[in-house]
Amino acid sequence: MGGTGFAEGFAGSLLPGKRPALIVIDMMRAYFVEGSPFCLPSTGSVESAGRVLDAARKAQVPVFHTRVMFGPDAVDGGVFVRKVPALRMLIGETGLGQLMPQVAPKGHEVVIVKQYASAFFGTTLQPTLTSMGVDTLFIAGVSTSGCVRATAVDAVQYGFAPFVIRDAVGDRGSEPHEANLYDLQAKYAEVVGEAFALAYFSEVCERE
Amino acid sequence: MGGTGFAEGFAGSLLPGKRPALIVIDMMRAYFVEGSPFCLPSTGSVESAGRVLDAARKAQVPVFHTRVMFGPDAVDGGVFVRKVPALRMLIGETGLGQLMPQVAPKGHEVVIVKQYASAFFGTTLQPTLTSMGVDTLFIAGVSTSGCVRATAVDAVQYGFAPFVIRDAVGDRGSEPHEANLYDLQAKYAEVVGEAFALAYFSEVCERE
Amino acid sequence: MGGTGFAEGFAGSLLPGKRPALIVIDMMRAYFVEGSPFCLPSTGSVESAGRVLDAARKAQVPVFHTRVMFGPDAVDGGVFVRKVPALRMLIGETGLGQLMPQVAPKGHEVVIVKQYASAFFGTTLQPTLTSMGVDTLFIAGVSTSGCVRATAVDAVQYGFAPFVIRDAVGDRGSEPHEANLYDLQAKYAEVVGEAFALAYFSEVCERE
Amino acid sequence: MGGTGFAEGFAGSLLPGKRPALIVIDMMRAYFVEGSPFCLPSTGSVESAGRVLDAARKAQVPVFHTRVMFGPDAVDGGVFVRKVPALRMLIGETGLGQLMPQVAPKGHEVVIVKQYASAFFGTTLQPTLTSMGVDTLFIAGVSTSGCVRATAVDAVQYGFAPFVIRDAVGDRGSEPHEANLYDLQAKYAEVVGEAFALAYFSEVCERE
Repeated sequence: MGGTGFAEGFAGSLLPGKRPALIVIDMMRAYFVEGSPFCLPSTGSVESAGRVLDAARKAQVPVFHTRVMFGPDAVDGGVFVRKVPALRMLIGETGLGQLMPQVAPKGHEVVIVKQYASAFFGTTLQPTLTSMGVDTLFIAGVSTSGCVRATAVDAVQYGFAPFVIRDAVGDRGSEPHEANLYDLQAKYAEVVGEAFALAYFSEVCERE
Repeated sequence: MGGTGFAEGFAGSLLPGKRPALIVIDMMRAYFVEGSPFCLPSTGSVESAGRVLDAARKAQVPVFHTRVMFGPDAVDGGVFVRKVPALRMLIGETGLGQLMPQVAPKGHEVVIVKQYASAFFGTTLQPTLTSMGVDTLFIAGVSTSGCVRATAVDAVQYGFAPFVIRDAVGDRGSEPHEANLYDLQAKYAEVVGEAFALAYFSEVCERE
Repeated sequence: MGGTGFAEGFAGSLLPGKRPALIVIDMMRAYFVEGSPFCLPSTGSVESAGRVLDAARKAQVPVFHTRVMFGPDAVDGGVFVRKVPALRMLIGETGLGQLMPQVAPKGHEVVIVKQYASAFFGTTLQPTLTSMGVDTLFIAGVSTSGCVRATAVDAVQYGFAPFVIRDAVGDRGSEPHEANLYDLQAKYAEVVGEAFALAYFSEVCERE
Repeated sequence: MGGTGFAEGFAGSLLPGKRPALIVIDMMRAYFVEGSPFCLPSTGSVESAGRVLDAARKAQVPVFHTRVMFGPDAVDGGVFVRKVPALRMLIGETGLGQLMPQVAPKGHEVVIVKQYASAFFGTTLQPTLTSMGVDTLFIAGVSTSGCVRATAVDAVQYGFAPFVIRDAVGDRGSEPHEANLYDLQAKYAEVVGEAFALAYFSEVCERE
């Protein structure tokens, strides 16, 4: 964004780069349908993520989706599944593992199947982003204190500037949500609003 | 194998450990059906791998399978698919991507879907092995100069003793096959015969 | 700990394994000397870590240390150093990068030099632990919301059961300290007291 | 290099990108002084690497160096050092671990200390390259069948186009040298001559 006026007044230390991508993390039915042990109190994050996703598509910003699925007996979930046995409900193809309609992938978009918290861990997300020349990763999804934070920390470690979209991420309660956004902004990422993401994608669109 | 007589006379510097696993790499139809650009001159490796697989199952040695599959437009194949465009025939579920009947996975066995040469790269193989306490990795599959070598090099890097089963790995020609087995034995792995693997698994079976 | 009485009453879902190691993360002068921008309000964590370290040594539990050091211009700090420019004070060998005397490494102990938050990222910690047969990682160090959490999340991802020692980790304030211990206990690790670590190491010592 | 004409007649499937870097791998005295168990028959590779290095510096192409060094008892060398015990001579700072004068690093250049074959394994090379926007990695160093090949395979896996400079890499014999260059060209990299590298760096220089 060098030279554009857009970033003015942007307080954070990271500026968005020239080649952004958007990742929508784990917005599976498991987090939004009643009765699931992972169910969140609100669908606000998925509504916001849907709007951000539409804007990214219009601006031809590359889009990635993730969901969690384990193999037989979740042996590929290792120690993580021992710690959180409820994850076993994501063994194989299940209704709870399906992505929400608001953020349903298009046929040409990559859906990354993962087994751990970070979308980078045990996946080919990093080489895919690097081979596309991506320098900036906008992050939506759930949960803030879990896979969103783990992905944002790995994003900065792997060399991408992470932008976490406050309205498009969610958690079970406001306390872990806010505490984790605080840590992310302090050390690893820029926490921005949905409006920032929409405006930025719009500018990317006009620029190219 | 401390204290057993089995390893006596074993010339290599690595001894097999107490907790082996077997991995069968990429034995897809793409390597064995006529007309495929990847087709190998012989099915000897897959026959041998089938026998090793049976022995591992009898000895309750954990078994892993890999195959290659890419997402839409192989964008998740990054620079590798640019270098080897023929890999694009493995986009999505295809007949060429199916594993050969001699080494067909059982329902409870993990099948790792990968996009790159090494079975460790962009997968959760390492944490799965570590969380199971595996210390030794027997390797069958194809091709010797490609995914077998890349997996063996990563195995020793990630902390597992690699045992490459000479009869159960194959390549397009004897020259790259032998040249790569030479490098593997010299620096990274123990190259052993099928009989070694069968005898070792049998001993593991008796021991426990 | 199978069959021992020690773990009775232990509420968490992960049990410590048979082969623990201890890691002491980034207890550099940068976190404990006045005037440093990273300075913590208390040295309680380093005192506790010193006692845990002594107990591990007595029990012959393997010990690892980490510290942060960057190369010329911190180019090897990538986007992380752009986000947290104060890290530039750890370029090259500096007084602030030295480990505190209470947790000074012995000559035979491995000191891992790292550039990022997680002690696993861009280091050979995982293969070292795997090649030693370690299954459980006790974690001390600073800061709770930074490198301690990032390391614990990676520990469970890489296949090790993480035990975070509450008394031996510290942060700038009690809010991020407690919020992060809450998340860690909920999803990734067991948060235990110093007394638990000392008792466990003592039992390991007697057992072998 | 789009539209420049330079790549015309270039037979390989990968074209060099816009942001190259050069890595010089493990050109330590251990490979070039008499009496070392790793000694190569010729210093031709280091002379060529020196010329390539000078050209990269003139063109302001970023330069990286690697060397191998292990910690106490080479415990951080894991299974690799068990396989190749001669590596133990690289424990701590040693004369054999010093880089050759022809390729001595400048003070502002990053020297990556590694413990394994691939320059990417257990190091922060990938995030450093990604955070700099590098898309292409020119590779010099030793040995062709060891660390050079392992690094080139990882380069293509991590998303960088690898260009292996035939004249600037070397091995103990011509057979493993040629066999490995053959595999690299076939599957993972472009194998080019020193003249290609010099001309390409020169063009990069003029372009910017």
